[in-house]
Amino acid sequence: MKKILIVSGSKSDENLVKVGTELLENWEIQYDYKVLSAHRNLKELMKFIEENEKEYFAIIAVAGLAAALPGVIASLTQKPVIGVPNEVGTLKGIDALLSMTQMPGGVPVATMGIGKHGMKNAVYFVKRLIENEEEK
Amino acid sequence: MKKILIVSGSKSDENLVKVGTELLENWEIQYDYKVLSAHRNLKELMKFIEENEKEYFAIIAVAGLAAALPGVIASLTQKPVIGVPNEVGTLKGIDALLSMTQMPGGVPVATMGIGKHGMKNAVYFVKRLIENEEEK
Amino acid sequence: MKKILIVSGSKSDENLVKVGTELLENWEIQYDYKVLSAHRNLKELMKFIEENEKEYFAIIAVAGLAAALPGVIASLTQKPVIGVPNEVGTLKGIDALLSMTQMPGGVPVATMGIGKHGMKNAVYFVKRLIENEEEK
Amino acid sequence: MKKILIVSGSKSDENLVKVGTELLENWEIQYDYKVLSAHRNLKELMKFIEENEKEYFAIIAVAGLAAALPGVIASLTQKPVIGVPNEVGTLKGIDALLSMTQMPGGVPVATMGIGKHGMKNAVYFVKRLIENEEEK
Amino acid sequence: MKKILIVSGSKSDENLVKVGTELLENWEIQYDYKVLSAHRNLKELMKFIEENEKEYFAIIAVAGLAAALPGVIASLTQKPVIGVPNEVGTLKGIDALLSMTQMPGGVPVATMGIGKHGMKNAVYFVKRLIENEEEK
Amino acid sequence: MKKILIVSGSKSDENLVKVGTELLENWEIQYDYKVLSAHRNLKELMKFIEENEKEYFAIIAVAGLAAALPGVIASLTQKPVIGVPNEVGTLKGIDALLSMTQMPGGVPVATMGIGKHGMKNAVYFVKRLIENEEEK
Amino acid sequence: MKKILIVSGSKSDENLVKVGTELLENWEIQYDYKVLSAHRNLKELMKFIEENEKEYFAIIAVAGLAAALPGVIASLTQKPVIGVPNEVGTLKGIDALLSMTQMPGGVPVATMGIGKHGMKNAVYFVKRLIENEEEK
Amino acid sequence: MKKILIVSGSKSDENLVKVGTELLENWEIQYDYKVLSAHRNLKELMKFIEENEKEYFAIIAVAGLAAALPGVIASLTQKPVIGVPNEVGTLKGIDALLSMTQMPGGVPVATMGIGKHGMKNAVYFVKRLIENEEEK
Repeated sequence: MKKILIVSGSKSDENLVKVGTELLENWEIQYDYKVLSAHRNLKELMKFIEENEKEYFAIIAVAGLAAALPGVIASLTQKPVIGVPNEVGTLKGIDALLSMTQMPGGVPVATMGIGKHGMKNAVYFVKRLIENEEEK
Repeated sequence: MKKILIVSGSKSDENLVKVGTELLENWEIQYDYKVLSAHRNLKELMKFIEENEKEYFAIIAVAGLAAALPGVIASLTQKPVIGVPNEVGTLKGIDALLSMTQMPGGVPVATMGIGKHGMKNAVYFVKRLIENEEEK
Repeated sequence: MKKILIVSGSKSDENLVKVGTELLENWEIQYDYKVLSAHRNLKELMKFIEENEKEYFAIIAVAGLAAALPGVIASLTQKPVIGVPNEVGTLKGIDALLSMTQMPGGVPVATMGIGKHGMKNAVYFVKRLIENEEEK
Repeated sequence: MKKILIVSGSKSDENLVKVGTELLENWEIQYDYKVLSAHRNLKELMKFIEENEKEYFAIIAVAGLAAALPGVIASLTQKPVIGVPNEVGTLKGIDALLSMTQMPGGVPVATMGIGKHGMKNAVYFVKRLIENEEEK
Repeated sequence: MKKILIVSGSKSDENLVKVGTELLENWEIQYDYKVLSAHRNLKELMKFIEENEKEYFAIIAVAGLAAALPGVIASLTQKPVIGVPNEVGTLKGIDALLSMTQMPGGVPVATMGIGKHGMKNAVYFVKRLIENEEEK
Repeated sequence: MKKILIVSGSKSDENLVKVGTELLENWEIQYDYKVLSAHRNLKELMKFIEENEKEYFAIIAVAGLAAALPGVIASLTQKPVIGVPNEVGTLKGIDALLSMTQMPGGVPVATMGIGKHGMKNAVYFVKRLIENEEEK
Repeated sequence: MKKILIVSGSKSDENLVKVGTELLENWEIQYDYKVLSAHRNLKELMKFIEENEKEYFAIIAVAGLAAALPGVIASLTQKPVIGVPNEVGTLKGIDALLSMTQMPGGVPVATMGIGKHGMKNAVYFVKRLIENEEEK
Repeated sequence: MKKILIVSGSKSDENLVKVGTELLENWEIQYDYKVLSAHRNLKELMKFIEENEKEYFAIIAVAGLAAALPGVIASLTQKPVIGVPNEVGTLKGIDALLSMTQMPGGVPVATMGIGKHGMKNAVYFVKRLIENEEEK
């Protein structure tokens, strides 16, 4: 069965992540959730992705502020990476949105909207990917 | 073989689209390209999506200004939709970026960066989706 | 007698809509209010507009986030469409304002300000349209 | 026959205005065009509106920078006023867009997008108003 | 003795105005305070300025949203006009700041910062003008 | 006779300053123009202001980027200081506009618009101050 | 032992400063904290920097609004100056961020993020500077 | 002698980097310049930093768009990292500025202004660090 990896940059993203995991649980899609920062745990993040990426069908990366997490993961794996900007900090996620979307050519991050709507849509998007494949 | 649909909202997006189709051709990924506006050809767009969506593995939607195209396509199909904001108009794509990302929960648009980098990444992302599936 | 159609993209826009309907009731202008999303109920929206547009003198469309609603309605009817950006989400309606105003040439949305002032003015504007016509 | 008044705040808006008057001429809709600034010719503007408003079916006001023109006209007449922000100055029309939309409740300005698309849509909107009335 | 006129566009600006009038009272500078909107009371505003401008040494204009008030007053009088953007509405005064500063050449509005700091500084600036003159 | 001091933060502001000095020359208002940066020549600036401020009726300070110049001058003198943001750099003067207006209470900078319109208006404003005084 | 100077522009920055001084105390790095505004106490600030700069290894300058403080300090000393924008006022520190970063060439301010994260990082950065030196 | 490492995310940053290296050469400060992207060469970047960090006194990281480079380097080393946002892409460096400054607490990036001024100041700042140390 297809399994999703959710990574968030900080434990404080957990409330936002829950908005997505509830949907995944309703739809009986398996997932793992890790808290690993691109800035504070870069090597651990790299090790985890390298050793485990094969297990996962897609990766959802949630981060706020200078949200480098989804871009860094997208550079470590060839799996599809979906980014969700969290609305933390004084700029309320606009910084995270730009940090995720404005990637250089070759390292794609599929970015969703800021906050709850974005988290939900990351999961809806993953569901489309899974169903797309099963259909064939 | 997996085929991609590229839709742009206006003929003037063609230069941007070409940045992506050149990559697709290099990688020998099949695609069709249609110019259909969510505002000027809504019914034609709906008809095309309904009649043809089964043929396509994923849809890339390119638009500028109040870029409703990817969101509208995402509401017409369950296929994965990737949005690329074009940097046209006085706001240089910031309007299009927000119009694409800030979708309500349930209708996901996987948004890439503004302009050329974004167009390239839409195609790189689609390649990941295809390889992800083949791998299994 | 002239009747106004108000459409909002989500039930959560109801508080904002009420600011306008109270004025309409004070002025004894008839209206209908429907909740229909351009993203979640596109076909229902199209059907409703097609079957009922003749009944209405003008349409007020209220939406937040990637507010495609007024633009989509404006592409489905030749009636005058007035857009009101709701200040929901982390960007407080700036996203909705740009999604409404930055329409391509040919599909006009007459956009009012963000939130309550905008909702009031949508109704004041409609009143001007009605009186303008009666005067002649 | 219904006649439209176009007012722009400066002679330098003429190129933008032409985008609209060409459409009006194609459609054989009569119009007058005046250059009158809310800041430099306020009294002349007031006099002109007061003496001539009856002649016009709707007023399109084009302005850049701190674009007070449409709001001031909307406070001088009960006719429908449509605002078009010109993309002049270092802020490229974002200042004008906010100066037009963010009106206090009671004085509606129906704002179109920045620049050419907006000017075209102002005229398309006026056409809808005229046809709306004729239809009845 | 030199007298200052303070005009605000709405009664809801009163709290902000008070921040300035307390300073004026401490310094025993005379002032009058009027609530007159450039949009809702344009003629009354014009009449007031015309009949009374001679009495005043300088005019402080406070407004939020599409804050046309200081610009309109500056076009009605040759007195120095100081603008204070109020942080009302969803854009928190950024709209008002741009509506005040981005004046066309020939109609100067001396703009202060948004909100309380700006209101205080309007009064500090007026004090400088008064002392500047007395010194000579 | 009243004399104006114009200070700009860099020699590269000279073109913008000229827009103002031409008006001053037309109106036969005397002025001195100094290039003194708040960042590169702070002590020289302080010395100049201290030794010469008595000579001047008002000070116009022109600067781009993190435009600290008008605020620093306003803290060195009790003369009225008028700020003009130059549209240099990638942010085109928005940074300078905020650096000038957002002063703490007690140190007023009377800010004009970005670029040429702002420079003209600084001089128009000074003319109002001079005439205001002469009138009495 | 190396000592750090922290200067903030206002007593109201104290809560933010505390986020940094707690870290300094944990790490047993000595510091002095002064409240000195570039606008309200410019001469005192200059005197303090001139007389005491030799004592300090680096200077952290915290300010909100038109945050001229770090730039002015950087122009008074050759010591490394680190700027921290406080999220006060209606623009929540965006004004301060631009006022600090957008310095002219030659007067460097090493700017950290807005608010608490930035304050912490200023102190983390200083620790790196100290350890960098000790290491050699 | 102290040596500086300059890393830029793309070969296209070379023109901007040159603005800094010319200064370094004038001042006879040694440096190495590497092009290594946090997204396209993450492992190579990590390897280079790990193996060579001891050689360098400080690291200047130049990047545009979603400029993760300085933050990633700051997480790989305890050396002081200075970030310079390049003004590439449609957002002209605003995206890069936010991606660099808005770092989570614990991983400091000392950010300079966008483009040439910023690049110069990165080098001026490094010079202060070197002289600061030598002085002792």
